[in-house]
Amino acid sequence: MAERFEIRLAGSGGQGLILAGIILAEAAGIYDGKFVCQTQSYGPEARGGASKADVVISDEEIDYPKSIRPDVLLAMNQKSLDLYLRDLKPDGVLLVDATLVSEIPDHHRVFAIPFTELARDRIGKAMTANIVALAALCQLTGAVSLEGLEAAVLARVPRGTAELNRAALAAGVEAARRVQEETAHLPAGGGEDET
Amino acid sequence: MAERFEIRLAGSGGQGLILAGIILAEAAGIYDGKFVCQTQSYGPEARGGASKADVVISDEEIDYPKSIRPDVLLAMNQKSLDLYLRDLKPDGVLLVDATLVSEIPDHHRVFAIPFTELARDRIGKAMTANIVALAALCQLTGAVSLEGLEAAVLARVPRGTAELNRAALAAGVEAARRVQEETAHLPAGGGEDET
Repeated sequence: MAERFEIRLAGSGGQGLILAGIILAEAAGIYDGKFVCQTQSYGPEARGGASKADVVISDEEIDYPKSIRPDVLLAMNQKSLDLYLRDLKPDGVLLVDATLVSEIPDHHRVFAIPFTELARDRIGKAMTANIVALAALCQLTGAVSLEGLEAAVLARVPRGTAELNRAALAAGVEAARRVQEETAHLPAGGGEDET
Repeated sequence: MAERFEIRLAGSGGQGLILAGIILAEAAGIYDGKFVCQTQSYGPEARGGASKADVVISDEEIDYPKSIRPDVLLAMNQKSLDLYLRDLKPDGVLLVDATLVSEIPDHHRVFAIPFTELARDRIGKAMTANIVALAALCQLTGAVSLEGLEAAVLARVPRGTAELNRAALAAGVEAARRVQEETAHLPAGGGEDET
C-alpha cells in the first residue's frame, strides 16, 4: 500500500455511505492496524441529498484527514459520479453501482457492478448495497483485508443481521472476482499514456 | 457562534461516540445549515479502547477538518479526560460523565453530569448515555439547536427507539438546565484571569 491511500464513498443520503466509511475506517484502523482518518463533510450542499465519506489510510500518522485526490472513488449514483470523478487520480480505481449509474465514463480502471440489484435480488435487502459495495471495493483494491472488513461490519451492523451481512459481503467479493476475471486480459491500470 | 467551533467527543469504544459525532454533525450541517466536518481517527492507539470523534462547525467552508483546540470536550471516561484535557481551550467547556470520571479537574467551566447513571436509571438503557450527553452538550453550549439535534437523532437511531431517544434527549436537557441554575451565581466562563 502507498504511504497515503485515499478512498471516497459517495451517493445519495440513505444509501448508508456514512456507515460504510466508518466500517472501512474501523477495518483499517482497528483490525488492520493502520492509521486512518474518516471524514464526512456536510454543508448547504448536503441538503441536495448528496452524501460522501472520505477515508484516508496510511502507515504513518495522518496530518491532513480530508481526501484530496482519491485513489478510489465508489459512486453509488449518477450525481455523485458527475460531482467527484474529476477528483479521482488518473490511475485511480472507479467503482460504480451499475444499477443506478447509467452513464459510465470512459475511465481505464472503471468497474461497474450492480450493487443495488445484487443487494435487492440476491440478499433480499436493497439497503445492504453499501456492504456489497464495500466487499467489492476491498477485493478489487486491497484497501483493507477481507477479514478486517468482515470483523468491522459485524461489529457495526444491528444485532440479528450478521448472516444477512455475511451474505452481502460474499456477494460483493464474488461480483468483484467476476469482473476481475473479465478484465484480466486488459492492460493493468496506471498506464504510461496517462501523463 | 464563532467562525469555527470545535467539539471533541471522547470515551471508550462502545459508548457510541462515533455515532454521537455523526448525529451532531448532521444536526449542524443538514438541519442547522452550517458547514461541518466530522472526523474520526483510528490508529494503533485505538486498540486501547479509546474512541474519539471531532466535529468542526463553521459558518464558512472548512479547510482543516481536524479539531485542533476544542471549544468543547465531552469526556465520557477518565482515560479520555486525562488524554485530551490539555487540548481544550482555556475558556472551553468541559463536560464529563460523573458516573465514570472520578477525578474531575479544577477547570472553571467544568460541568459534571452522571450521563451513564441517568441513561441506566431514568431511561432504562445505559447505552443511551451518548444521547443524554449530546442533549446536555447542546443545551450548555448552543453548538446546535435542540430541534436540529432531535431531528438528527431520530434519523440515525434504529427504528422503534424514537420514544426512548426522545426521553434520553429530555433527560440530558433537564440535567444541563439544573447545573446551569446551580452555577448561575458563578462568574461566566472565559474570565480575564485566564490569560
